[in-house]
Amino acid sequence: MPRANVREQLIEAGLQTLHLHGFNGSGVQDITDAASVPKGSFYNHFESKEALALQALERFWQNGAGRRALLSDTSVEPVERLRRYFRGLADAIVHHNFQRGCLIGNFSTELSAESKEIRDRLAEIYAAWCRSIESCVREAEKADRVQPRLPAAVVATFLVNAWEGAVLRSKVEQDKSPLDQFERVVFAAIFT
Amino acid sequence: MPRANVREQLIEAGLQTLHLHGFNGSGVQDITDAASVPKGSFYNHFESKEALALQALERFWQNGAGRRALLSDTSVEPVERLRRYFRGLADAIVHHNFQRGCLIGNFSTELSAESKEIRDRLAEIYAAWCRSIESCVREAEKADRVQPRLPAAVVATFLVNAWEGAVLRSKVEQDKSPLDQFERVVFAAIFT
Repeated sequence: MPRANVREQLIEAGLQTLHLHGFNGSGVQDITDAASVPKGSFYNHFESKEALALQALERFWQNGAGRRALLSDTSVEPVERLRRYFRGLADAIVHHNFQRGCLIGNFSTELSAESKEIRDRLAEIYAAWCRSIESCVREAEKADRVQPRLPAAVVATFLVNAWEGAVLRSKVEQDKSPLDQFERVVFAAIFT
Repeated sequence: MPRANVREQLIEAGLQTLHLHGFNGSGVQDITDAASVPKGSFYNHFESKEALALQALERFWQNGAGRRALLSDTSVEPVERLRRYFRGLADAIVHHNFQRGCLIGNFSTELSAESKEIRDRLAEIYAAWCRSIESCVREAEKADRVQPRLPAAVVATFLVNAWEGAVLRSKVEQDKSPLDQFERVVFAAIFT
């Protein structure tokens, strides 16, 4: 019977390996090596590398739940909440030395056309992510802090996508400036 | 002696294959098959798949030169030029059914941490791309059409990165809405 802790080790090692080297850049052997489990045990837990990638994506998304909770902390005013949220994300990118980028963005470019299952899950994750930003944008709107007269959902989606673009660029520049420029423009042009 | 047209066929087929399936998702065999040349001929022309990828990236960037030239067409007012430019890029994404995304963005997420040579060339391409947008932003500024009081270079970089994020998202949604939302927000919040 497959042991639960081996499965857990595979998900954690899979997340690290796939985040750093991409889906097609990581072999099952790389993942089992990183998990320190025998290669043969992989298929007791996952029917394919794609199945593991889906679990790694899930883990990545769940790992962000604590930070997303800050977006609904009404003790902080909504524009400041958004600023802190994106700064927190930027800190994580810096912490990993611009080597990994965002797993959601990485899988978006690498796997959208290759795996319907991963693409569908990415779409759901983006939708949920945008909704959590949107509530905050809506509150900012009520406080008359949103510059363009556009639906909060449109602004929220734009922010999430522009953020992914900034992260992608920071991976190329190996530098925080795209993340800083994101902050400078967003908190001058969109929020007042 | 390597034949020039085989080299050319390999670059063209390499561009198509790498754009659709990614670097690690395409084998040399896939590229030689797409080019209808024997696999053995590949290494007469390129010392590695990475060397071909660099040429494919170059070709992709050069293919965009005509569209970028529109950005300096002073017979059109600068904000309208920017709008038409991004619409043109969006049309190309739609034309390819959201299957490929932007090669520059795809390579940014997939190869920045894996290939210094490709990362360096990506950084140069982004810099040149941002400069061509920046001139247009500067002209828009002179015409008092830019909302945030920020350096044109910062606005231009933000636009390029946010565009890449919108393209990445359209690959997931298989839908034009992220590109439309980019236009709606940019031409309401940044340009007046």
